[in-house]
Amino acid sequence: WRRQAALAAAREDEEEKELRQRFMAPPVSGLRELRRRRRELRSRMELLIMETQAEVCRALTALDPGASFAVDSWERKEGGGGISCVLQDGEVFEKAGVNVSVVSGLLSEEAARQMRSRGKSLKAKDGKLPFCAMGVSSVIHPKNPHVPTMHFNYRYFEIEEADGTKQWWFGGGTDLTPTYLNEEDAVHFHKTLKEACDKHDPKLYPKYKKWCDDYFYIKHRGERRGIGGIFFDDMDSPSKEEVFQFVKSCAKAVVPCYIPIVKKHCHDSFTPEEKLWQQLRRGRYVEFNLVYDRGTKFGLLTPGSRIESILMSLPLTARWEYMHTPLESSKEAEILEVLRNPKDWVH
Amino acid sequence: WRRQAALAAAREDEEEKELRQRFMAPPVSGLRELRRRRRELRSRMELLIMETQAEVCRALTALDPGASFAVDSWERKEGGGGISCVLQDGEVFEKAGVNVSVVSGLLSEEAARQMRSRGKSLKAKDGKLPFCAMGVSSVIHPKNPHVPTMHFNYRYFEIEEADGTKQWWFGGGTDLTPTYLNEEDAVHFHKTLKEACDKHDPKLYPKYKKWCDDYFYIKHRGERRGIGGIFFDDMDSPSKEEVFQFVKSCAKAVVPCYIPIVKKHCHDSFTPEEKLWQQLRRGRYVEFNLVYDRGTKFGLLTPGSRIESILMSLPLTARWEYMHTPLESSKEAEILEVLRNPKDWVH
Repeated sequence: WRRQAALAAAREDEEEKELRQRFMAPPVSGLRELRRRRRELRSRMELLIMETQAEVCRALTALDPGASFAVDSWERKEGGGGISCVLQDGEVFEKAGVNVSVVSGLLSEEAARQMRSRGKSLKAKDGKLPFCAMGVSSVIHPKNPHVPTMHFNYRYFEIEEADGTKQWWFGGGTDLTPTYLNEEDAVHFHKTLKEACDKHDPKLYPKYKKWCDDYFYIKHRGERRGIGGIFFDDMDSPSKEEVFQFVKSCAKAVVPCYIPIVKKHCHDSFTPEEKLWQQLRRGRYVEFNLVYDRGTKFGLLTPGSRIESILMSLPLTARWEYMHTPLESSKEAEILEVLRNPKDWVH
Repeated sequence: WRRQAALAAAREDEEEKELRQRFMAPPVSGLRELRRRRRELRSRMELLIMETQAEVCRALTALDPGASFAVDSWERKEGGGGISCVLQDGEVFEKAGVNVSVVSGLLSEEAARQMRSRGKSLKAKDGKLPFCAMGVSSVIHPKNPHVPTMHFNYRYFEIEEADGTKQWWFGGGTDLTPTYLNEEDAVHFHKTLKEACDKHDPKLYPKYKKWCDDYFYIKHRGERRGIGGIFFDDMDSPSKEEVFQFVKSCAKAVVPCYIPIVKKHCHDSFTPEEKLWQQLRRGRYVEFNLVYDRGTKFGLLTPGSRIESILMSLPLTARWEYMHTPLESSKEAEILEVLRNPKDWVH
């Protein structure tokens, strides 16, 4: 009996150690449960999003050693929960949030329809559909106007229909929002994403690059939020395993896409005018997220969702000036031109 | 011939003088046209909104003598236009906008339905309805956190149905958004509005006070944008003349509602912490306007609308902190309590 107890204690110590090394907090589903169903895709996806969260948080902290991430684990009363990591007012980063959520429960047919961007019909039992949704989502707003804002999100959905068949799909993307255009950075960012996509299918990058330009469109301004990247939704072919491997490649590309750009520019000098233009672009970021972003809108309307984690994407500070128009041929006009007419960065 | 020319020139001079004295810019419909159809309600309403704009702009400039309003007259290619007056980065006011618009054209049945908050059916000829919409709309964001933000809007709609009958209605309201609660100010503001309403019907203030509390609700936060005032829409009884007189009383109450509060507090001292709380409340103001406000959403979705005039309502600067929670029994918690549970200020 004693030997068994000692073994159990040792195993727990081991798990503790592993958790601390690998993740920002214990996973929502519990490490033991994830081990038990290790072959299931939802377990492998939960481990991937937890690893991605930790990788990104560590890479950011390494560049901003004075700052640290506040880690909040939260539960959702309707089922599941999440882990929000937020760094605020650091030396390098104004606000950086990396959020994991793993939620499950019952969806109304209406809500299920809204979750898929191209509405497939779903057959419910008594109007309710058991579902499971998980993802990692992040927005990084740096202080220096020469370091761009970056956003990424990778997510997985499962919905069980009345006859027991499971619908599943992945969605996600990584995109860059610079205050000023730096062509070299734009090319590096898009090339790194293209390489991650090309390993799986050379058709993916062009398709998802265009989807990204179309999605992050601030219609009332006639401009995109940033210089794009990749974006996809409802991805359910060729097979669960292949899509998961693709999503994994994209998630692993986040750090190599972005961190070199931060390192390169975080000590660049800047003027008060450049800081002001950054603040105005932050205002546009807020406009996109509150007026158009499907994830934000869906989150704000969903009862029981964690508002602070959803609105974590908003910058610490933003500015709106009436009729601000950059001078012709200025650096401000240069980036606006690209936001109005997206460019091809890799050919 | 010469005498006639001299008379015409004198009349033009006279008109010029009158315009300069009474209004911020020539009215959209032209002074002569307004005189020609002086008995029509849409002419009287256009004069009222022009006068209100000038009254408010003058009262604000008197308190912030170093600053001045930029006046932009603009045309809408589909019909009509407007006059936007904006004061930015003054001594007393961070951003103050007072906007008049007078637009007309053809509405789709769908758009017409959306314009009325309680959808009455409208019978169109060939699916199109001739309409005329006009209003004055304003948001004043002061610098000092002890001076509240104020918003008002008064508007008039006419839609002509297929058989030639005209539907018409008025809408509007005035409301206050303080950073900190000052009971005396809240009572003054609401009492002044109540007096304006009571002259017409004692049932109006209680009804429109509640409508205001319900309308300016930030659902995802569980709090109102401010401490309310009055709000109404679709007002089309007892008669056109009586509703116009009521709207006139409300419009004339804007200056006495608000200006004494600005005068009282614009030289109050404040701490950096108080300025920070103001910036966080500005963030909530942005959330309401971009996520919930019907006017803003309708404007952003309407082709040909003037975006800069619609988004003039946004503050110059705003802030979002993750998980900001005021200390118990602090002044910040005091105002939050009132925003969560609206109070009756006049009984």
